[in-house]
Amino acid sequence: MEFRMNIREEAVKMKQVAPVLAASSNEERNAALRAIGQALQAQKEAIFAANAEDCRAAEEAGIAQAVMKRLVFNEAKLTDVCKGIDQLISLPDPIGRTLLKRELDAGLVLERVSVPIGVIGVIFEARPDALVQISTLCLKSGNCAILKGGKETAQTNRVLFSIIRDAAVSAGLPASCLLQAELHNEIDELLQCEKEVDLLIPRGSNQFVQYIMNNTKIPVMGHADGICHIYVDRDADQEMAVQVILDAKTQYTAACNAVETVLVHRDIAPSFLPKLARALHSASVRLRGTQEAEDLIVGSVEAAAAIDAVDIMTDEDFRTEYLDLILSVKVVADVEEAIDHINRYGSHHTDSIITRDDAAADRFLQMVDSAGVYRNCSTRFADGFRYGFGAEVGISTSKLHARGPVGLEGLVTYKYLLRGEGQIVGDYASGRSSFHFRDLM
Amino acid sequence: MEFRMNIREEAVKMKQVAPVLAASSNEERNAALRAIGQALQAQKEAIFAANAEDCRAAEEAGIAQAVMKRLVFNEAKLTDVCKGIDQLISLPDPIGRTLLKRELDAGLVLERVSVPIGVIGVIFEARPDALVQISTLCLKSGNCAILKGGKETAQTNRVLFSIIRDAAVSAGLPASCLLQAELHNEIDELLQCEKEVDLLIPRGSNQFVQYIMNNTKIPVMGHADGICHIYVDRDADQEMAVQVILDAKTQYTAACNAVETVLVHRDIAPSFLPKLARALHSASVRLRGTQEAEDLIVGSVEAAAAIDAVDIMTDEDFRTEYLDLILSVKVVADVEEAIDHINRYGSHHTDSIITRDDAAADRFLQMVDSAGVYRNCSTRFADGFRYGFGAEVGISTSKLHARGPVGLEGLVTYKYLLRGEGQIVGDYASGRSSFHFRDLM
Repeated sequence: MEFRMNIREEAVKMKQVAPVLAASSNEERNAALRAIGQALQAQKEAIFAANAEDCRAAEEAGIAQAVMKRLVFNEAKLTDVCKGIDQLISLPDPIGRTLLKRELDAGLVLERVSVPIGVIGVIFEARPDALVQISTLCLKSGNCAILKGGKETAQTNRVLFSIIRDAAVSAGLPASCLLQAELHNEIDELLQCEKEVDLLIPRGSNQFVQYIMNNTKIPVMGHADGICHIYVDRDADQEMAVQVILDAKTQYTAACNAVETVLVHRDIAPSFLPKLARALHSASVRLRGTQEAEDLIVGSVEAAAAIDAVDIMTDEDFRTEYLDLILSVKVVADVEEAIDHINRYGSHHTDSIITRDDAAADRFLQMVDSAGVYRNCSTRFADGFRYGFGAEVGISTSKLHARGPVGLEGLVTYKYLLRGEGQIVGDYASGRSSFHFRDLM
Repeated sequence: MEFRMNIREEAVKMKQVAPVLAASSNEERNAALRAIGQALQAQKEAIFAANAEDCRAAEEAGIAQAVMKRLVFNEAKLTDVCKGIDQLISLPDPIGRTLLKRELDAGLVLERVSVPIGVIGVIFEARPDALVQISTLCLKSGNCAILKGGKETAQTNRVLFSIIRDAAVSAGLPASCLLQAELHNEIDELLQCEKEVDLLIPRGSNQFVQYIMNNTKIPVMGHADGICHIYVDRDADQEMAVQVILDAKTQYTAACNAVETVLVHRDIAPSFLPKLARALHSASVRLRGTQEAEDLIVGSVEAAAAIDAVDIMTDEDFRTEYLDLILSVKVVADVEEAIDHINRYGSHHTDSIITRDDAAADRFLQMVDSAGVYRNCSTRFADGFRYGFGAEVGISTSKLHARGPVGLEGLVTYKYLLRGEGQIVGDYASGRSSFHFRDLM
């Protein structure tokens, strides 16, 4: 018999306690995080047992080996999430920071202070470590969270969630600060809670994120597509370019920050493309090239081994996130054409230029309209941990508020505080008083 | 014969030039602003003539006197908008600011820099000065803008827009950086441009803003309701409270930051409410009180003059933005009940406490979940000019990105720039390399 929770009722309670959590001190929130880390260690056998059940069921269902790796929650993953919790504890308090302090007139002082967003709903893939990361990021930033994880790890999620919630509440955080949704139809109920939920963060397939975006009035943070580009400029270090592309395509092919399209400057394409084709062929990556790219690869004796791996591509391929060992390749006239292509076909996620030419790099970094624009490194660096944020709740391609990997700072907003001595606007409108706008910090 | 423009085609062009405008220098954008100010002065007779036509038509249509005042664009309004332009020129460049600079590892440097949002659509009321303010705010912040003003000032808007656009383009900004929409059905076309338009800012009635929010996938910034509160605490300076409430209700009754509900501490209600009732009665403000509030006012000989002006209120009144000379009044037990009421019935816009008690004030400022939370001053201060932002494109009750009055800073976002020397993620995943996260500023 499955317990049927009313998500909206729970969300209403959560909305009411949100200001209480927002008013908690960094010490109180850190104490809760420490308690969570200790409880996870103390009750690890229960977690591992639940995870073994999930993994057995997944194996019986014939799940792919790559997916299987994500479901597992073992001693190594426990160590990782506990390290992550320690790192969160060591980070400065993201809330209560004064972002602006301005005297508007004598005795009238305006402050902008960072505050939590409030109630955040996160819907994420079947990865038990994500549940720990997301819940602790939300608590550190003073946010209440409603969590819905992938069903393949339902047993593990249930055990993890109750350990985390109980530890947080025992440590003094409000009872309704965390909520777990378990049933798929609860997602639709959550989407209707626009009065109670301040932000939704869906993680998953393009299709899933689009569904969320199209079916709620709650602001959604995240990204649907991750169509990342690497542009190999005329003045690129070609060996570096091959290594960076291999890493960006194969180090974690299913990640949103994996490269999907390589653009190559026409002047170096004849020498570079065959080299790239050989390296990719060895890594089992298939190429989809424009006719020009194909001719250069197929025409080169050097790249003979890669010939069978080149498909002629369609325009639609440039808008496709393969998430697979497939790479689009196109020859471009110069950095301007590369920029145009990326701004037109890309998803404004993360794009990189490989070049020794400072002018071309500056132009690329300036003109490419993406959350991450890189020079001489792999697009796979787009990640909250690698940016030094401790962890991330997702990567945002939105331009409002948070862009790129979203860590603690992306989980807070601000409010304006104005302290006066009875000032009224009429006096300023009539000219009896006037503002002097003096920044105090 | 009306020229029928294709909004999407124009928006596509605008999207393409957006990175060019984003790459312009502060000097180039300031030169355009100076040219706009000069052109407005030089061609003021044409503006005044067009405005006279609009005003004549409005008068014939029998428009209300309060609305009429907004339609007028005369010498005084011209001086005001030109002052506003000078102030914008004097403000520091909001784009290209380094918000974070961190060495991730030797030779791998991450920066977060502020960049324009891109293409912004603003739909605003019939106020010609708003057209000047919004277009110059967008240009200063490097954003392209699609402007749709109220139809009552269509002639004035057309003249103002062509002066502003021509001056900006003559000064060197890209030709498609500004676009005017004139027909009402062009709004619906604009709402479909989610690929081209990065942000919509609708200003107007609750109903209109709701319509926009419900009919587009473009992110919307702004507010539907402005249900602002003033809580008069037990330890309030009662004379100050009366003056602040009068200002907040009557200084500009139709503004979103005008007060709609006054909450009064029970201990002072018997002495304070009659005083307030008399003052409001003199200012022609009708009261809607709870039964308890009404009894206190009606029962007081002192407030006899106000008796006829008290209506018994319904719960729904607390959720109503009157935008009129009507005020809801409720007696509460303490600051906690005031906070609960505001968080439940308010619109998270701007709320103020009147008190001499620091503890009550701190609690209120901490717990009220609104974009502006004030102490001892009028809610009418919620305004970009009064905050020292120069001007505003609107006031946001959203918690994502921009909250409260939205000036230049609310019109920019950031991107992450990462500069390396060929670094690949594989080396960090395998442990060959490790991050050292050193903040450089």
